[in-house]
Order: sequence, then structure tokens, then C-alpha cells
Amino acid sequence: MSNESDGDLIFKALAHRRRREILDLLKDAPRTTGMLCEAFTDMDRCTVMQHLKVLEEANLVIARKDGRERWNHLNSLPIKQIHDRWISAYAGHALSILDRLKNDLES
Amino acid sequence: MSNESDGDLIFKALAHRRRREILDLLKDAPRTTGMLCEAFTDMDRCTVMQHLKVLEEANLVIARKDGRERWNHLNSLPIKQIHDRWISAYAGHALSILDRLKNDLES
Repeated sequence: MSNESDGDLIFKALAHRRRREILDLLKDAPRTTGMLCEAFTDMDRCTVMQHLKVLEEANLVIARKDGRERWNHLNSLPIKQIHDRWISAYAGHALSILDRLKNDLES
Repeated sequence: MSNESDGDLIFKALAHRRRREILDLLKDAPRTTGMLCEAFTDMDRCTVMQHLKVLEEANLVIARKDGRERWNHLNSLPIKQIHDRWISAYAGHALSILDRLKNDLES
């Protein structure tokens, strides 16, 4: 993540349930665009490709051409970066609140 | 997080650097809307209030009235929820890729 606006792009890409579902599939293994379309029969090919474009712009998906096929690979590093720089501090904050609440209830 | 569309709201709220900066301030202590406006002199009051509205809709900020003042409190639990349900698995995935890369380089 080179700067804060990259963070904006990543969070924006994650802000759609369908895009998170695509990433969940790619977490298991790379897939061709055709395979992704088959996995989401309720979306047309154009919509799947639009979601892939947003994910590529946020650097969360890297595409490799192999002949006529386009293999989509997950790049999880930007998610690790927002985790380390940002999310983990808030998860820690929430845990400390929950601990305090638990202690208050017990005392 | 009651359902997946709540996840959309949370990621969308986080997808703006200014809103993340507001949360960073509230992580230290609750602040009145006036205090937040003073902290961000390059934003007008209306813009600050619009950002607060998006954060409230995502349940990341809880406002309490005290006389004429409106105190904004961070609610970090939804961020912990997206961390636990989603982000942590990807951070783990990235770590395993980095480990594999390290081993490949060393061998």
C-alpha cells in the first residue's frame, strides 16, 4: 500500500458482497474467468468481469493470460497490509472493551 | 454484523481516508462534533457531519447528546467482526505465501 488512497481502493473493492465471494473462491485456487462465471450463475459474464476489474484496480486480483484463457489469482498482500496498519488496532480496541465489560459484570 | 450487506456498509464507511482519520481520533477518546471540526480545519462542518453520518449508518460511531453537545463514540465491534469473519483469513493466506517464498529463496 503505497499511500492512503490505495487503502481507499482496497476497502472500496471489499465493499461488495459479490466481490468478497469472488475472492473467497480465489483463496482456494486460481480460476479462469469462465470458471468464475460458472460459479455465479445468477450474474452475467459482464457483471463478473466488472467486479474483476474493480478487484484488479485494487491489486487484489492479478490476471495471467494462458492461451485464450485468463487465470485470475488472489493477491492477499494488500488485505494483510490494511490488517496490519489498521484493522488489527481496532480489533484490539474491541477486545479491550469486551474485557472491561466482562470484568465489570464479574465484579 | 447481522448479514452480508452490513459488511458492505462497514467496508464502504472505511473506504475514505477522512473517515478512517475520524475513527483514529475517536479510538483515543470520544469527541464532540465541534472538537472533530477543530481537528480537521481543512474540512467544513457540513463535510465532517456527512462523514459522521456514514460512520453512524455503519454502526461504527454512536452519538450521545449531552445538553447542546453531541458526543461521538467509536464502536469498534463491527470492525472486529469483519476482522474475525473475513480479514484474518486473508492475512493468514498472505503470511503463508510469504513463508513459502522465503523457503523457496532459502532452498
